[in-house]
Amino acid sequence: MRDRSADLERLAELLVGFGANLQPGQVLGVTAYLGNEDAARAVARAGYKHGAKYVDVSWWDHLVKRARLEFADADTLDFVPPWLEQRMQWLSDERGARVTLTGTSATVFDGIDPARMGRDLLPYISAVPRIVNERTTNWTVGPSPNLAWATRVHPDLEPEEALDKLWDEIVYVCRLDAEDPVAAWRERMTTIVASADRLTERRFDALHLQGPGTNLTIGLMPSSKWLGADFQTVDGRTHYPNLPTEEVFTTPDPERVDGQVSATMPLELYGSSMDGIRIEFEGGRATKIDADEGADALRAAAAKDDGASRLGEVALVDKEGRIGPLRTIFYETLLDENAASHIALGNAYTFPLEDEADQARANKSGIHVDFMIGSNELDVDGITHDGDRVAVLRGGAWQI
Amino acid sequence: MRDRSADLERLAELLVGFGANLQPGQVLGVTAYLGNEDAARAVARAGYKHGAKYVDVSWWDHLVKRARLEFADADTLDFVPPWLEQRMQWLSDERGARVTLTGTSATVFDGIDPARMGRDLLPYISAVPRIVNERTTNWTVGPSPNLAWATRVHPDLEPEEALDKLWDEIVYVCRLDAEDPVAAWRERMTTIVASADRLTERRFDALHLQGPGTNLTIGLMPSSKWLGADFQTVDGRTHYPNLPTEEVFTTPDPERVDGQVSATMPLELYGSSMDGIRIEFEGGRATKIDADEGADALRAAAAKDDGASRLGEVALVDKEGRIGPLRTIFYETLLDENAASHIALGNAYTFPLEDEADQARANKSGIHVDFMIGSNELDVDGITHDGDRVAVLRGGAWQI
Repeated sequence: MRDRSADLERLAELLVGFGANLQPGQVLGVTAYLGNEDAARAVARAGYKHGAKYVDVSWWDHLVKRARLEFADADTLDFVPPWLEQRMQWLSDERGARVTLTGTSATVFDGIDPARMGRDLLPYISAVPRIVNERTTNWTVGPSPNLAWATRVHPDLEPEEALDKLWDEIVYVCRLDAEDPVAAWRERMTTIVASADRLTERRFDALHLQGPGTNLTIGLMPSSKWLGADFQTVDGRTHYPNLPTEEVFTTPDPERVDGQVSATMPLELYGSSMDGIRIEFEGGRATKIDADEGADALRAAAAKDDGASRLGEVALVDKEGRIGPLRTIFYETLLDENAASHIALGNAYTFPLEDEADQARANKSGIHVDFMIGSNELDVDGITHDGDRVAVLRGGAWQI
Repeated sequence: MRDRSADLERLAELLVGFGANLQPGQVLGVTAYLGNEDAARAVARAGYKHGAKYVDVSWWDHLVKRARLEFADADTLDFVPPWLEQRMQWLSDERGARVTLTGTSATVFDGIDPARMGRDLLPYISAVPRIVNERTTNWTVGPSPNLAWATRVHPDLEPEEALDKLWDEIVYVCRLDAEDPVAAWRERMTTIVASADRLTERRFDALHLQGPGTNLTIGLMPSSKWLGADFQTVDGRTHYPNLPTEEVFTTPDPERVDGQVSATMPLELYGSSMDGIRIEFEGGRATKIDADEGADALRAAAAKDDGASRLGEVALVDKEGRIGPLRTIFYETLLDENAASHIALGNAYTFPLEDEADQARANKSGIHVDFMIGSNELDVDGITHDGDRVAVLRGGAWQI
């Protein structure tokens, strides 16, 4: 395999310096799995070089989790140690920066009962969406190529070749091949934000999505604003929560979603694999969940709490992004959700809603599960308050 | 290398079932370094099989720490994230069990300024000695053989052979070669505790240690009781805080230590290597610290707080133990301190003191640094309150 140390340093610099936008004196919280050691250490180095007061790496191990899923009493599987919430609250109180590294190795959970898996969502904790909505931390999520992930994405290649190919793809989609990746991202974000602004201007009452296995109407809130993934903290610090990012998104009306939808890509959920997801919605609630694989885990997640069966996000991705055209399934939401339009069950961002009454109605849940429903075969229309229909996406191209 | 999976399972079972003595429904806190993955996962499996409510693994990485030591502002190096203390307090409040895995890889810190190293003691935090003294958790510390450690202990062997040899030694000193390791440990502890009881009966006013480079008088407290490393929690749960263990120990008078002492073995302190340590004491305080290697790091530790330059422990090890005769330097206090008699700078256990006035006088510090001063050339005498001298250890053999 080629030496990737220079790519690693550029990736870490992009995540810390641009994505999280770490400022001198800030604490940097890092979430990483065992397997992400190289990237986590590069992020730690970049963090300290940018003047971090302390880089707090929270490591997670799939095999320790597997031990729990295999042997723990079922009644204990949703236990969350209190220090995890306290740690997140500390990062929030400190106005800290955060970097989360992703890179799946879900095959370690092969053979585990999906219903048990759905009860242990760690390291996901409910403090995270709350703090995201409070906008107290400047954060980003980025990919960390590793052998286990690479062999899942490219099973036909020898492991080292698979990792080389995955690295090439990550370099490409993260625009690390640009002479100045930060400048490249600033340019791309300008385009994405312009699309979001055009959508916001139309103030659609709803979206209608029509494609193979999908016929879904998603109500929007009166003040639903479309955003690209460039965020600002309450203190006015810009950060880019996902790298790479290609989506525009908003917060839908959790009580006005009706019809049926078919996922166009598989996904990993807290370690479970899911494929061929089909969901029927009525009055905003998912009333029927099926899947070719992993239906039990998705049903368990959707039953987690009252908002877990309602939508918290709708996002549109055009065909101009760098991820979709690769036609690679990364089995990693960070990347796959930016390949295609998607919706999410569970907790909503409140900051796309400008009206407080709308914010109060936004969906609340302890989960947030994105799944991809977009393709070039998906037609997206906007429905105006007068009931008129306006073409929004056709063949993956913006019509507005 | 030979397949060590059976040894690993026996080690984990010894640590969880006997050392920590985990009870069904308890939380199990595990502290492990990256490099200890195999043992940590085996401990997690053993924990859940014993009915743990949750196994909370706190992972630490030497290379992330190295990034801090290389690049962080010096003024930030003693910062400790608050959740670490909160996590320990939770384990205490829950009456949890704890397993710490050791296995050094200190060469990753080569080239780092020892004075900087002495300021970052993580993962050591002051909550640990406090909670140990409160006796609220049933805990143990055990070894986790790994390649980096093995090549440090046996640098002349090929890495795989070195690891094989280290594993053989760990199996031997942990008595995993016995048909029933728990029965073997119960028998050995009976002998150790009997030695401790004989020492306690004498109620010596002080110990005098005489050997090459050592001429040291250590005052004892009126109620100093000698103990073997079998502890009981406040709830009456027996646990064995070190595996292996060969020592008897007590808490000395922090104001009556005079003379000079020379360490007989090198040690690792929070990642720094130290060798040839020589310390002069006057009125209990270390007034002069020298070393052939690592003096700065030891001086920095001893300057950490008021009690860091006074003794918190004196421990005697006879020549009957399994560690000393191997003549292996493990560069790991857990093992090396059980090879030879030792003293510790810093925080004292209060529970060897039966009198509350003595407990109040026991040394208090944020550090606890054991270093080995024993050998078969070290003569240990007890000094009675009448000033008489009683031979305690000669040539490593008990004289009482």
